[in-house]
Amino acid sequence: GFADVDLGRTQRTGYPETIFGSGKSANQIVGIINVLKEQEPCVLCTRIGKSKAAKIVKAIPAVHYFEEAKCLVVGQMPKPITRGSIAIVTAGTSDIPVAEEAAVTAEVFGNRVERVFDVGVAGIQRLFAKLDVIRQANVIILAAGMDGALASVVGGLVSQSVIALPTSIGYGSNFHGVSALLTMLNSCAEGVSVVNIDNGFGAAYCASVINRNN
Amino acid sequence: GFADVDLGRTQRTGYPETIFGSGKSANQIVGIINVLKEQEPCVLCTRIGKSKAAKIVKAIPAVHYFEEAKCLVVGQMPKPITRGSIAIVTAGTSDIPVAEEAAVTAEVFGNRVERVFDVGVAGIQRLFAKLDVIRQANVIILAAGMDGALASVVGGLVSQSVIALPTSIGYGSNFHGVSALLTMLNSCAEGVSVVNIDNGFGAAYCASVINRNN
Amino acid sequence: GFADVDLGRTQRTGYPETIFGSGKSANQIVGIINVLKEQEPCVLCTRIGKSKAAKIVKAIPAVHYFEEAKCLVVGQMPKPITRGSIAIVTAGTSDIPVAEEAAVTAEVFGNRVERVFDVGVAGIQRLFAKLDVIRQANVIILAAGMDGALASVVGGLVSQSVIALPTSIGYGSNFHGVSALLTMLNSCAEGVSVVNIDNGFGAAYCASVINRNN
Amino acid sequence: GFADVDLGRTQRTGYPETIFGSGKSANQIVGIINVLKEQEPCVLCTRIGKSKAAKIVKAIPAVHYFEEAKCLVVGQMPKPITRGSIAIVTAGTSDIPVAEEAAVTAEVFGNRVERVFDVGVAGIQRLFAKLDVIRQANVIILAAGMDGALASVVGGLVSQSVIALPTSIGYGSNFHGVSALLTMLNSCAEGVSVVNIDNGFGAAYCASVINRNN
Amino acid sequence: GFADVDLGRTQRTGYPETIFGSGKSANQIVGIINVLKEQEPCVLCTRIGKSKAAKIVKAIPAVHYFEEAKCLVVGQMPKPITRGSIAIVTAGTSDIPVAEEAAVTAEVFGNRVERVFDVGVAGIQRLFAKLDVIRQANVIILAAGMDGALASVVGGLVSQSVIALPTSIGYGSNFHGVSALLTMLNSCAEGVSVVNIDNGFGAAYCASVINRNN
Amino acid sequence: GFADVDLGRTQRTGYPETIFGSGKSANQIVGIINVLKEQEPCVLCTRIGKSKAAKIVKAIPAVHYFEEAKCLVVGQMPKPITRGSIAIVTAGTSDIPVAEEAAVTAEVFGNRVERVFDVGVAGIQRLFAKLDVIRQANVIILAAGMDGALASVVGGLVSQSVIALPTSIGYGSNFHGVSALLTMLNSCAEGVSVVNIDNGFGAAYCASVINRNN
Amino acid sequence: GFADVDLGRTQRTGYPETIFGSGKSANQIVGIINVLKEQEPCVLCTRIGKSKAAKIVKAIPAVHYFEEAKCLVVGQMPKPITRGSIAIVTAGTSDIPVAEEAAVTAEVFGNRVERVFDVGVAGIQRLFAKLDVIRQANVIILAAGMDGALASVVGGLVSQSVIALPTSIGYGSNFHGVSALLTMLNSCAEGVSVVNIDNGFGAAYCASVINRNN
Amino acid sequence: GFADVDLGRTQRTGYPETIFGSGKSANQIVGIINVLKEQEPCVLCTRIGKSKAAKIVKAIPAVHYFEEAKCLVVGQMPKPITRGSIAIVTAGTSDIPVAEEAAVTAEVFGNRVERVFDVGVAGIQRLFAKLDVIRQANVIILAAGMDGALASVVGGLVSQSVIALPTSIGYGSNFHGVSALLTMLNSCAEGVSVVNIDNGFGAAYCASVINRNN
Ligand SMILES: Nc1ncnc2c1ncn2[C@@H]1O[C@H](COP(=O)(O)O)[C@@H](O)[C@H]1O
Ligand SMILES: Nc1ncnc2c1ncn2[C@@H]1O[C@H](COP(=O)(O)O)[C@@H](O)[C@H]1O
Ligand SMILES: Nc1ncnc2c1ncn2[C@@H]1O[C@H](COP(=O)(O)O)[C@@H](O)[C@H]1O
Ligand SMILES: Nc1ncnc2c1ncn2[C@@H]1O[C@H](COP(=O)(O)O)[C@@H](O)[C@H]1O
Ligand SMILES: [Mg+2]
Ligand SMILES: [Mg+2]
Ligand SMILES: [Mg+2]
Ligand SMILES: [Mg+2]
Ligand SMILES: [Mg+2]
Ligand SMILES: [Mg+2]
Ligand SMILES: [Mg+2]
Ligand SMILES: [Mg+2]
Repeated sequence: GFADVDLGRTQRTGYPETIFGSGKSANQIVGIINVLKEQEPCVLCTRIGKSKAAKIVKAIPAVHYFEEAKCLVVGQMPKPITRGSIAIVTAGTSDIPVAEEAAVTAEVFGNRVERVFDVGVAGIQRLFAKLDVIRQANVIILAAGMDGALASVVGGLVSQSVIALPTSIGYGSNFHGVSALLTMLNSCAEGVSVVNIDNGFGAAYCASVINRNN
Repeated sequence: GFADVDLGRTQRTGYPETIFGSGKSANQIVGIINVLKEQEPCVLCTRIGKSKAAKIVKAIPAVHYFEEAKCLVVGQMPKPITRGSIAIVTAGTSDIPVAEEAAVTAEVFGNRVERVFDVGVAGIQRLFAKLDVIRQANVIILAAGMDGALASVVGGLVSQSVIALPTSIGYGSNFHGVSALLTMLNSCAEGVSVVNIDNGFGAAYCASVINRNN
Repeated sequence: GFADVDLGRTQRTGYPETIFGSGKSANQIVGIINVLKEQEPCVLCTRIGKSKAAKIVKAIPAVHYFEEAKCLVVGQMPKPITRGSIAIVTAGTSDIPVAEEAAVTAEVFGNRVERVFDVGVAGIQRLFAKLDVIRQANVIILAAGMDGALASVVGGLVSQSVIALPTSIGYGSNFHGVSALLTMLNSCAEGVSVVNIDNGFGAAYCASVINRNN
Repeated sequence: GFADVDLGRTQRTGYPETIFGSGKSANQIVGIINVLKEQEPCVLCTRIGKSKAAKIVKAIPAVHYFEEAKCLVVGQMPKPITRGSIAIVTAGTSDIPVAEEAAVTAEVFGNRVERVFDVGVAGIQRLFAKLDVIRQANVIILAAGMDGALASVVGGLVSQSVIALPTSIGYGSNFHGVSALLTMLNSCAEGVSVVNIDNGFGAAYCASVINRNN
Repeated sequence: GFADVDLGRTQRTGYPETIFGSGKSANQIVGIINVLKEQEPCVLCTRIGKSKAAKIVKAIPAVHYFEEAKCLVVGQMPKPITRGSIAIVTAGTSDIPVAEEAAVTAEVFGNRVERVFDVGVAGIQRLFAKLDVIRQANVIILAAGMDGALASVVGGLVSQSVIALPTSIGYGSNFHGVSALLTMLNSCAEGVSVVNIDNGFGAAYCASVINRNN
Repeated sequence: GFADVDLGRTQRTGYPETIFGSGKSANQIVGIINVLKEQEPCVLCTRIGKSKAAKIVKAIPAVHYFEEAKCLVVGQMPKPITRGSIAIVTAGTSDIPVAEEAAVTAEVFGNRVERVFDVGVAGIQRLFAKLDVIRQANVIILAAGMDGALASVVGGLVSQSVIALPTSIGYGSNFHGVSALLTMLNSCAEGVSVVNIDNGFGAAYCASVINRNN
Repeated sequence: GFADVDLGRTQRTGYPETIFGSGKSANQIVGIINVLKEQEPCVLCTRIGKSKAAKIVKAIPAVHYFEEAKCLVVGQMPKPITRGSIAIVTAGTSDIPVAEEAAVTAEVFGNRVERVFDVGVAGIQRLFAKLDVIRQANVIILAAGMDGALASVVGGLVSQSVIALPTSIGYGSNFHGVSALLTMLNSCAEGVSVVNIDNGFGAAYCASVINRNN
Repeated sequence: GFADVDLGRTQRTGYPETIFGSGKSANQIVGIINVLKEQEPCVLCTRIGKSKAAKIVKAIPAVHYFEEAKCLVVGQMPKPITRGSIAIVTAGTSDIPVAEEAAVTAEVFGNRVERVFDVGVAGIQRLFAKLDVIRQANVIILAAGMDGALASVVGGLVSQSVIALPTSIGYGSNFHGVSALLTMLNSCAEGVSVVNIDNGFGAAYCASVINRNN
């Protein structure tokens, strides 16, 4: 068939297969959900636009759709099971959709999530006002577009792992997120590792693994 | 003066400032070492070529130079203080110098290090033969050049954090490490985050932060 | 006129001219089909969207349209005439449309085709479960997007020719297939040669030439 | 001849032609200096390596060579004639040679210069400690390599013009200064304009024009 | 909430926060306007398309929408308060929308603006005919796409600051403004600094800072 | 106003200003036409889509619209006035729209045009069959996408000027015409110069200048 | 140790591990040779410069060094064992070193090799003069730099597999082989697959696999 | 052998094969010269460094070496045979070596050459002072690095063919000539066609073909 669902994923890596919705038809997604939910209490689908979501919601019971995050969750969201939390920080308002993909993913994986939005370096006092909150988390996800400079600033101020999440927000020589990506890869603060542009899911996955073992 | 040494670094981030040797004169490096070693028991300098190292060794007592890693350590290497270890895995023999920069850094930061070299996907049985060793570590650093494919393969087989470390080994459309970097950023396995090309230091820093809190 | 159809193609290269549908009007395509089918029992058109296909189907008898592959075949599909088969392997579900362009092309050229879909390295046990099937083929086409890592893994496990077919599946630093293309060009496994991004037709053509002479 | 020296430059733009030393022979440079010093009290040559400088110094009287800046000045350095000053800020120690090209240029053009070096965002308290000094200047030049993040941070804290000067310090995905250049072009702080990578001369020229009219 | 409005901006940098409309919903923009207009007599929003503008106009009183500039101004436009003016020069007719973003911004910030449009180097006599007008300004903004050559030509003819503003006008190897951006960064005329592609707002901001202090 | 029409163009360069339609409104184009046709017997507008053309046709008398070329001509097409002709050669059928922009331009400038379409190197005998026709022209325009190889082949077979015109036909690593552009810039045949991707107008302009002086 | 030699390679893929010399020390290479030659009658090392070769030759008996190919062979070169041959074609004289890496590799793997050098499209009659020779081979390797156009021309004239081998010969917008690589990936002739820039070894490996099974 | 000299070149294209010296050994070049000078009165070799030239001069009689142009001419330079001349214009002093490659080539091909050096747009009055001289030529070659803006300015002022010749002079975001190349490809002046970066030979070849037929 069109999918060879990886049912051993949880055993090997600690979390079940997530369905990457983009480029799959609603029918294909429904098919894969049906295989996965046999085994997993909570199935996550990312990159699901509004109209595709509507079709899936009709076909599958117990689905919740998170519109800003473009995520769809089948089954019950787990209660937070981690001791520590993951802080998800954004530089601007426009980075929030990517941050929400990360937040929903982290919550599906049982993490407590602390949202700290719109504290970019253009008004750095906003960051300092929230630094205590950020420092209480176990792991920090940092979503920023344009210059991506917030990652380096935060990286220099904390002792936790920082997962830098470049977003495609910007224009011109931003090149759809490349400028933020390069800033983060070249961060002069240490302890910063990077995931793909707009990959909220991947950032949350990495953060969950770290938080789980804390 | 030419340097404004960051003496609050350990307090803020948990590790002291490391000296990035490339583009600094031996004199400048000696000057910075002298400020840092007042306060820190063990000072690390990276990217120090053989002849620059020779000059510094003459000027500073109690220095050890790691030639393959191009690292220079002032003071006593710490005994491993972490419970768990960091596995440093390479795809090929040519990736070893970058892996050694990571290994020396991790050891300076008090980690036990497990080296697993030359197990790239061209002969994937070599990886499976070492999988048990790799799975015993708390964090995995994965150094690979050329296709960088090993990161995705390992990422799909383990439940720990994987820090992907692209190296500049290769030629032609490798573009000095870009092919491996992109492979790793686009890894279809989860739990993989990425640092800059040849940034063994950064990979080890990230791994140390995770290992410290385990 | 607008086309100077290459009627000597079969004699020179062993296969007739295929019509590349993208950027041609339905009228132009009908015109070229009419010239080619005078001479060839089976004419293949690639890159034909659904609505363009509908117009052509009306104007030409004995046409079959393969929607997922976006291919249109005029005349009778040949019975498989080759002794050996071509295995077409994909890393994910989203790579299937490109793989189907390859499959239909290979079948039009008289090959037996073995489809092995969704066995990417994130769950590598899926690949090992199908390795026997893959090894029975004469040639292997490997379609993958994102990290494109499957090409190197398979390349290291088989003794046949591997035609690596990068797809544009992915986002961000995938750059519309460039990350997979570079991975494949820099494969550390040998015996892997590469065609253009999403070029299912070209991969199948190369595989057919090899399979024909086996 | 090989040069058509622009003797109307001072009248049109306010400053005389500067000799760009790179790619010119010592003889050619001596020839151009001899034309310019007829008319200008102080002639500046940039991008002059040590050995080329030695040859020129032999041929021309009243020359001073600034080694770190790779600048050569013929005639008397002017006393500072501007009311306000130009602050030249660097993120690291390795950015100093580029900053010095800017400093010497600014001084040749009659500006008072304030050097603030090694205050990058990895230890942001170093910047805050110098903020008063920086805010007293009329214009700010900001030299940074790697992530170039300092430009955005300073841009958000001051009301003066900020000339961002990306340096080629870094490695890997720094791409010889491109990462810092893109960060600065995409700065989310306003009032930041950018010059070419390592173009200390150009940054100082722009700053001088602004400072002159203040 | 979704926004952490930077109310200290005017005090720190001299101008209030401007709302970057692209990627924000009409509701989010209305929310931010309502916070800002408590404190600021005149609030500027950029990158507001026609239909989004219509929604905001309904929700907020005393709004003026500048369609060509895609700017929306809340409150009273200030009378020009600067002694000198800013000349905004374009190479072609198609660069005007970007130039208008700059013009409206400059006017909101209290500057007198002089528009000089369509004087590109293909007909350089048009530039010379306007040179007197341009030279009377305090600062010059130069908007050009395609070859971006006008920036260098003007830079060599004036003694004021030139803010080069590359536009995305062009096609093919223009790469959405990259050719003009590179031309401007590599200008062989001095006194030219550069902002991001199509960043009329940023160019006007930089020009305003310079003009304010004149 | 929005345009500063260059009425001295014919005198300086031999041909009047041509209107580049893309990014201008129908109204703006009508305005410019009205200025130009006062002075020029035949005005050319390029890059005019079908619906924009319809609006202009309504406002201006004596207009002819060439749909495939996306060109609009005001006034009478001139009789060919050149002794020699321009051959316009394409590699494929899909390159024809770009070739037609070149053809209409050349005809408006008074040249005789010889069209030789779809003779690309995949079936090189088609080129040899037309070589006599091509060699009779004074100048050759060579439009090709994908590999752009035809330019080098023709360049090695003729003694006339070859203007290479890369088209954006292709996909994947074609990068919207970059592959053909680079092939042509790196042609190992001599006498080949290159214009921008899809710049049929520019190719014809260059060819006209050469043909005029023959 | 530094290497984990893949002794199962011949069984899995049909050919033993080849040593990639670049980036390994002479000592490391000697170490790996000593492991491999226990098992393999003929060991190939590629990318070995003259002075590194001299060191290895001293340490290992029965070594032959091919200077132009930069290849070193330990043990006896096999007699050609294949029925058919591999034609290795170059566009120019400067492509020969890369072609020789391919030729030596093919010979080590037991193939008969036919060299056809310097027949690029600038003088296409040279190709036609050798077409019979080329058509007698079972597989064709096509090495070309600069425009890489020869691959498409040959691809359209033969019915065998064509392995396109871009070389880094050229300058400027050749970008060290990228122009030839893109030409070949976008070949409008079919049956062309591509290996990495300057990867003579890889091209020969692919050709050997095809030739072995013929 | 290593070369298959194209002796039919003069008949097909009007000029004999020129030897591209870079990447060939002195011996190979001597070999090719010996074949060509049997038939051609004057043989041109380009890209010959000083020490390689010395070896060739020893082996071949009647050679003249042009050091700045890095060109070597065997046999007698022809008297200018063209009616008109070729103007070779440079923006700066550093572009002269590339311009000299063009000049020597044009002279070998029998053209009268007019050199106009160092008239770049930073001091545009230098260009206007030479405009009469430039307008008297039949064809114009325009060599410029950095911003490459001179091509557009000259293109708008003359009625002849302009061959734009980007040079690699510059640094940083010049990317070894890419900025000038893109400027020229996107020239808003018409009648400008472009050759590869630093390709003085190619520019002169194109100009010669045009000048020959005038
Ligand atoms: N938003 C996302 N970004 C990147 N990877 C994702 C995302 N959502 C899911 N995935 C991964 O994509 C895999 C599924 O790929 P596929 O076989 O194409 O469905 C999942 O197992 C996840 O690892
Ligand atoms: N999907 C495809 N991708 C690449 N090339 C193709 C494809 N389909 C057909 N072609 C080739 O394109 C050629 C036709 O080009 P054209 O003259 O533009 O129709 C055919 O002879 C095929 O070699
Ligand atoms: N370091 C520098 N970076 C950029 N431009 C420079 C530099 N130094 C001098 N210049 C400019 O280069 C021009 C001289 O160019 P040239 O005719 O090649 O000597 C001077 O007038 C300056 O405008
Ligand atoms: N057109 C524009 N281009 C670039 N930056 C802008 C533009 N308009 C506003 N901005 C900046 O973007 C900041 C707001 O970012 P955000 O928090 O996403 O609303 C403002 O404070 C401005 O500094
Ligand atoms: Mg905000
Ligand atoms: Mg190995
Ligand atoms: Mg799947
Ligand atoms: Mg420092
Ligand atoms: Mg205009
Ligand atoms: Mg065709
Ligand atoms: Mg040759
Ligand atoms: Mg000069």
